[in-house]
Amino acid sequence: MSSVIPVSLPQNSYDIAIASIAELGDRIQPLSKLGKKALIVSNAAIFKQYGQTVTDSLTQAGFTVSSCLLPAGERYKTPATLQKIYDAALENRLERSSVMIALGGGVIGDMTGFAAATWLRGINVVQVPTSLLAMVDAAIGGKTGVNHPRGKNLIGAFHQPRLVLIDPEVLKTLPAREFRAAIAEVIKYGIIWDAELFEMLEQAKRLDQIRAVGDELVREMLVRSAKAKAHVVSKDEKESGLREILNYGHTIGHAIESLTNYKVINHGEGVAIGMMAAGLIAVEMGLWDRAECDRQKALIEKAGLPTQIPGGFDRSEIVPTLQADKKVKDGKVRFVLPRQIGTVIVTDQVAPDTIEKVLNSIDLLRDP
Amino acid sequence: MSSVIPVSLPQNSYDIAIASIAELGDRIQPLSKLGKKALIVSNAAIFKQYGQTVTDSLTQAGFTVSSCLLPAGERYKTPATLQKIYDAALENRLERSSVMIALGGGVIGDMTGFAAATWLRGINVVQVPTSLLAMVDAAIGGKTGVNHPRGKNLIGAFHQPRLVLIDPEVLKTLPAREFRAAIAEVIKYGIIWDAELFEMLEQAKRLDQIRAVGDELVREMLVRSAKAKAHVVSKDEKESGLREILNYGHTIGHAIESLTNYKVINHGEGVAIGMMAAGLIAVEMGLWDRAECDRQKALIEKAGLPTQIPGGFDRSEIVPTLQADKKVKDGKVRFVLPRQIGTVIVTDQVAPDTIEKVLNSIDLLRDP
Ligand SMILES: NC(=O)c1ccc[n+]([C@@H]2O[C@H](COP(=O)([O-])OP(=O)(O)OC[C@H]3O[C@@H](n4cnc5c(N)ncnc54)[C@H](O)[C@@H]3O)[C@@H](O)[C@H]2O)c1
Ligand SMILES: NC(=O)c1ccc[n+]([C@@H]2O[C@H](COP(=O)([O-])OP(=O)(O)OC[C@H]3O[C@@H](n4cnc5c(N)ncnc54)[C@H](O)[C@@H]3O)[C@@H](O)[C@H]2O)c1
Ligand SMILES: [Zn+2]
Ligand SMILES: [Zn+2]
Repeated sequence: MSSVIPVSLPQNSYDIAIASIAELGDRIQPLSKLGKKALIVSNAAIFKQYGQTVTDSLTQAGFTVSSCLLPAGERYKTPATLQKIYDAALENRLERSSVMIALGGGVIGDMTGFAAATWLRGINVVQVPTSLLAMVDAAIGGKTGVNHPRGKNLIGAFHQPRLVLIDPEVLKTLPAREFRAAIAEVIKYGIIWDAELFEMLEQAKRLDQIRAVGDELVREMLVRSAKAKAHVVSKDEKESGLREILNYGHTIGHAIESLTNYKVINHGEGVAIGMMAAGLIAVEMGLWDRAECDRQKALIEKAGLPTQIPGGFDRSEIVPTLQADKKVKDGKVRFVLPRQIGTVIVTDQVAPDTIEKVLNSIDLLRDP
Repeated sequence: MSSVIPVSLPQNSYDIAIASIAELGDRIQPLSKLGKKALIVSNAAIFKQYGQTVTDSLTQAGFTVSSCLLPAGERYKTPATLQKIYDAALENRLERSSVMIALGGGVIGDMTGFAAATWLRGINVVQVPTSLLAMVDAAIGGKTGVNHPRGKNLIGAFHQPRLVLIDPEVLKTLPAREFRAAIAEVIKYGIIWDAELFEMLEQAKRLDQIRAVGDELVREMLVRSAKAKAHVVSKDEKESGLREILNYGHTIGHAIESLTNYKVINHGEGVAIGMMAAGLIAVEMGLWDRAECDRQKALIEKAGLPTQIPGGFDRSEIVPTLQADKKVKDGKVRFVLPRQIGTVIVTDQVAPDTIEKVLNSIDLLRDP
């Protein structure tokens, strides 16, 4: 059984298909203006698991396939690593009609997407996300990029994929912590967009392990998250309005990720803490019901995600770090805040004092 | 007296203004959605000449101005140099609404444009071309990029400027060889688009020095070239059709530039030789009148540009090099060929034998 979620854009519409990676070749073969060369970009561990299936599928569909393996990890999401993709593109003489296949998590997806955006001023890319985070978030929407030594995703481009192919089966090999982290984004879609999804998650017995969650709910998460993101990005391709709601939990989350040098918590854990903070700010400002905020906390805990700010850095740096964020316009930090489960607003009217107060109160939650 | 040439695009329309650089601030000040931070990107020599005027103009219009000076020359048009712009963007906390000002020749324009395209996934850029080549070509049309160690402009993006400001006065300090080289592109517009411009150039007493050409004809060249390029790029923003005619003279020109390691001839000189070759191919194929082809040759000579292939490399590599060009689709080399002065066609039906024959005949022209 396969589902297809269309992402409709003024130009460059594409599908998100929930299907087996063995179908990849057949599914991209009918796309318009596609040549015969495909370059798979991945890392060694993922390629070892899934590279052969993907290569065979593309070869059988008539593609000439080459591959480029990058070192794994966020710290390699750099302009330097990008050069390896460019070198492989040159080596294999990719043409404007050729396609890059991003086979991996969000790191591979973002780098491959950016390489495709900029090689010959733009060639085709197909996203085959293998991490839950990439499936529900990174692979959808066309944001691509790499990090600057002093800031995440500062160098990038908007470049829509021709297809996103999501195979839930590959999640079985995903490390448990990666799975949990991505559940933070799924909870995010519940808060910002899909109250039913939120309730489904509440009803699940467990959320902290893929096996315990079960195939059916995993599939539901994938489809509903993809639909939410697809809807939002198709209303706002270049991030000038609605898309901002996807940053729920990310403002403070990013600051803490960055202040702990990306070593203590991962992205999803940062988002979990950031949602806690944003929720409490909303409550503090009288925008959100405390009872709903508590339900959010319970869900974050059930997912095995942190609800507290980690130690090891100077907490008073959080507010200044927020102000240095690239999303800041004229020095005013913008926050996405819940009004009720399923609905958020965006505001730049949060007083620094309110932020400080909430950041301190999160501490107090350590021993409830 | 100032002229404005509008470039109309589905989105992101902009003007090309022929005006003094002292007016820059006032001219960008009214642009929509522009913040108050401007980063001037230039090189030391150009900035020394014009940096103060531009800075003052921006400051007086209310901008907070910073600058970033890059090493001069095509060999620095690399991902590594790009990092310097990114560093300056970070240092000066550019926001999405900020603007980068490219003050320089095509090298500065292409790099600044690409940095602007990719910083925070796209910020504003204004092109202030200072070389004739950048004025008539590089600054218009939104193509931006840097070189890969093994190929020119392989890494890039389409990113439209908010304004192109052309000040003919700054050409007075341009080295003579740079001026001559760019005349090749002006002749190109005559052949592909504007027969009247071609005739004006024929009527000029001299074309090889800016002083000898005179202000009036220089201005005419600037306006007519900009109009030609603006028209073509606005019909075909992303280079999928009409825009290809701008490659007239560039196919073989690029190959020779590259085979001589960009050390023997410059870009315009390559284009001059390439136009000679394309013209002769068109004559050979019965598409173009020999008399008109001779007129083209006379004009190229009057401009002090080469009509012969330089020595120092293995000429039999030209055809294989053509086939390795990024513009090649399915191995077929596409040529822009004149039908008459002012009109060209695009074809992939040129037999390799015809190319070889013409390349040999260009040799024979050495002593006419
Ligand atoms: N473009 C966007 O819109 C967007 C949105 C959110 C996040 N991101 C980016 O995504 C990145 C994070 O993505 P991520 O969490 O997928 O990190 P990741 O790509 O580093 O993957 C996490 C780890 O899991 C491994 N892995 C992935 N799939 C696996 C599988 N099926 N089996 C076994 N191991 C597997 C990876 O090799 C890696 O070691 C960040 O760089 C972030 O900036 C981008
Ligand atoms: N983006 C496009 O559509 C496009 C089109 C054509 C060419 N290009 C690119 O443009 C570049 C070539 O541009 P270029 O010929 O301007 O080379 P350039 O930028 O290297 O300038 C040539 C030299 O002249 C100097 N110079 C420029 N203006 C001057 C002035 N007013 N006074 C004194 N010195 C001055 C420069 O510092 C440099 O040393 C190439 O990299 C080419 O790929 C891009
Ligand atoms: Zn996220
Ligand atoms: Zn040119």
